[in-house]
Amino acid sequence: MKNIIVAQSGGPTAAINASLSGVLFEGLKNSQKVYGALHGISGVINENFIVFNSNEENISSFLERLKISPACFLGSCRVKLPDFTKDSEIYKKLFEIFERNEIDAFFYIGGNDSMDTISKLAAYGEHISSPIRFVGVPKTIDNDLMCTDHTPGFGSAAKFIAISMLEMAHDTSIYEVPHVTIIEIMGRNAGWLTAASALARNKYNNLPQLIYLPEVPFDKEAFIEDVKCELTKSNNVVIAVSEGIKDKDGNYIQNTTAVEDKFGHAQLSGAGKTLELLVASKLGIKCRSVELNIVQRCAAHTSSKTDLDESENLGRMAVKLAMNGETGIMPVLKRTSNSPYHCEIESGDLKSIANKERLVPREWITDKGNDVTEEMIQYLKPLIIGEINIEYKDGLPVYEDIKHLY
Amino acid sequence: MKNIIVAQSGGPTAAINASLSGVLFEGLKNSQKVYGALHGISGVINENFIVFNSNEENISSFLERLKISPACFLGSCRVKLPDFTKDSEIYKKLFEIFERNEIDAFFYIGGNDSMDTISKLAAYGEHISSPIRFVGVPKTIDNDLMCTDHTPGFGSAAKFIAISMLEMAHDTSIYEVPHVTIIEIMGRNAGWLTAASALARNKYNNLPQLIYLPEVPFDKEAFIEDVKCELTKSNNVVIAVSEGIKDKDGNYIQNTTAVEDKFGHAQLSGAGKTLELLVASKLGIKCRSVELNIVQRCAAHTSSKTDLDESENLGRMAVKLAMNGETGIMPVLKRTSNSPYHCEIESGDLKSIANKERLVPREWITDKGNDVTEEMIQYLKPLIIGEINIEYKDGLPVYEDIKHLY
Repeated sequence: MKNIIVAQSGGPTAAINASLSGVLFEGLKNSQKVYGALHGISGVINENFIVFNSNEENISSFLERLKISPACFLGSCRVKLPDFTKDSEIYKKLFEIFERNEIDAFFYIGGNDSMDTISKLAAYGEHISSPIRFVGVPKTIDNDLMCTDHTPGFGSAAKFIAISMLEMAHDTSIYEVPHVTIIEIMGRNAGWLTAASALARNKYNNLPQLIYLPEVPFDKEAFIEDVKCELTKSNNVVIAVSEGIKDKDGNYIQNTTAVEDKFGHAQLSGAGKTLELLVASKLGIKCRSVELNIVQRCAAHTSSKTDLDESENLGRMAVKLAMNGETGIMPVLKRTSNSPYHCEIESGDLKSIANKERLVPREWITDKGNDVTEEMIQYLKPLIIGEINIEYKDGLPVYEDIKHLY
Repeated sequence: MKNIIVAQSGGPTAAINASLSGVLFEGLKNSQKVYGALHGISGVINENFIVFNSNEENISSFLERLKISPACFLGSCRVKLPDFTKDSEIYKKLFEIFERNEIDAFFYIGGNDSMDTISKLAAYGEHISSPIRFVGVPKTIDNDLMCTDHTPGFGSAAKFIAISMLEMAHDTSIYEVPHVTIIEIMGRNAGWLTAASALARNKYNNLPQLIYLPEVPFDKEAFIEDVKCELTKSNNVVIAVSEGIKDKDGNYIQNTTAVEDKFGHAQLSGAGKTLELLVASKLGIKCRSVELNIVQRCAAHTSSKTDLDESENLGRMAVKLAMNGETGIMPVLKRTSNSPYHCEIESGDLKSIANKERLVPREWITDKGNDVTEEMIQYLKPLIIGEINIEYKDGLPVYEDIKHLY
């Protein structure tokens, strides 16, 4: 291939740079020039490029360090392209830029929304019979992309959640007084990450005892009964909830009655805080809520080796697919065996992936809707396996420099 | 020595079991029987003991695994003993238990409050001319104990905070739109842990740009001016605040105007959330707050090797001091050199330690009160050095079983 462009889009993960590392590894071998567009598709529109150079002395150590670095080395954006049949102006501009820079392939690493972008570019390319290839590379901690067994970034976030949950199980075990701890985990619609909290259970730890995903309508009264029941068995009740749990009418479980604060802003509390207050008021016992927040998606120091290796391989495969002339596709993972765990890489059609969400199947959640099944645990288990070697300096992980983003 | 008892008290840390491991190592060598009292001094009162056995086959692997396990292997309590000159009943009961079990020394691992307990026991023992030795072993993530350069558990919490802050610096760097991120860190009165966020700064990262500790009265207007100023320099402003920041009248910075929720509970938001709302309303830009919460004190997978080694050594020294007949004391760390870093272990008088707090010196905070000085950074730096080897199984750290706490 002549030249190629790669960009990243959507929320950061611990593995999106591993996919970039994979694209760069194959791209530098198989094309003349590799451009990185800064801040996603905006970087292409503004021709805000950096050029990667395979002749640089330290390219292999750069690619290795990039692989283990959190967030998006190339920055990100949240830009939605219009339907080209209604408004093709931006497409004309983009293709003019692609052609002027002699681009043979464009790689976009991201989630559902990013796959919408690359899918639209592929469709426009086809429409004007452009030879440029458009290939998506999956990533999202939410694990909600269609056509793939799981998504890059998910395994590492799941691993951090499982480790933290185990450590919080130790932390909450120390007092004798009855208490409830609610851990709020990311996931607006899909409960995959929250389900990963179950991986913390082991021969001495049965926490969290209760797990609530957004896929099942949340009932506050049933929840209180569940908590009461667990408190008859243990003084230490730990509960994992998705941020996106909703009642039967589809309303988020958050404190909508909270009035405006003194600055005139309605102060909503999230699912965890809302349930904390509910438990405290209904049961009158000590309750604490913990929101894992952005730490769960950027904790690269606990990345899953399985996840990073797969992410890198998907990036490499994306380039190979483009070299084969394929466009409008995304390399996907197909699990062929659970034990020993094995995944093949296949290719998925972006039209079946963009703008869709893969939710947790109802049968992987218990009938009562307050836990996950053994099948879910067997699905999750291999994805967090393996630790990565990180170089530490002055007590901190050595990640790739991101000064170019400022 | 004949028999000894060891117990743990106060909030959990990643290093309190390392001190226990140290006490057990020396204790098993130098006494006939080592009792562990479950749930602090309550475990002595109720004679809720486990017995450690040096003849067990796996004692050395047990001690190694215990050293790296988070929270309190023996459980904890929050019990305050009365003044024995006013009410000596509980002391009579305790000393009857000590004598009946032929206890020569009692070791209590904990923070300021726990040092109050052991100090009172030592004083009562002196009062009745008992030969039993009472030795405190320091721990607290807050780093606020007197007479010691720093406290076990602090370095590990500081390391997790620095790592997370670096990873969040990557995470927040990816978008081009102006945004502010506020990280709330533990510390009601002492700002040591929040100061540790400065360790995330490196050759490419200057985040967090602003750091606010409880030692300096917090002024909301000055804060907004600080944020505005940083936003002229970068679109990505990250701020570390102690949970305990207070205004000039000593009131916590929290949203006290929040009214009761529908369950009749006043819903207070913490410092981070309150400042998030303040920034959003005053500056009208995107703002997020993150509370590191209990994860920062139990994240044993990122423990500082320096911290765990020192904690273990303090535990060992406690036993040696008791063997020398000393009582009413606590082994403390005395820094003799910053570079190369070196600490000696000395002995401190519990009367100068119990119920006192060591705050951050004003001169280690900048004049404007919105950052820490280079002197603070040089003090903190050695404490997070070194990584520990943790065995992983199924993708998770292998910690010591805590089933006996249930």
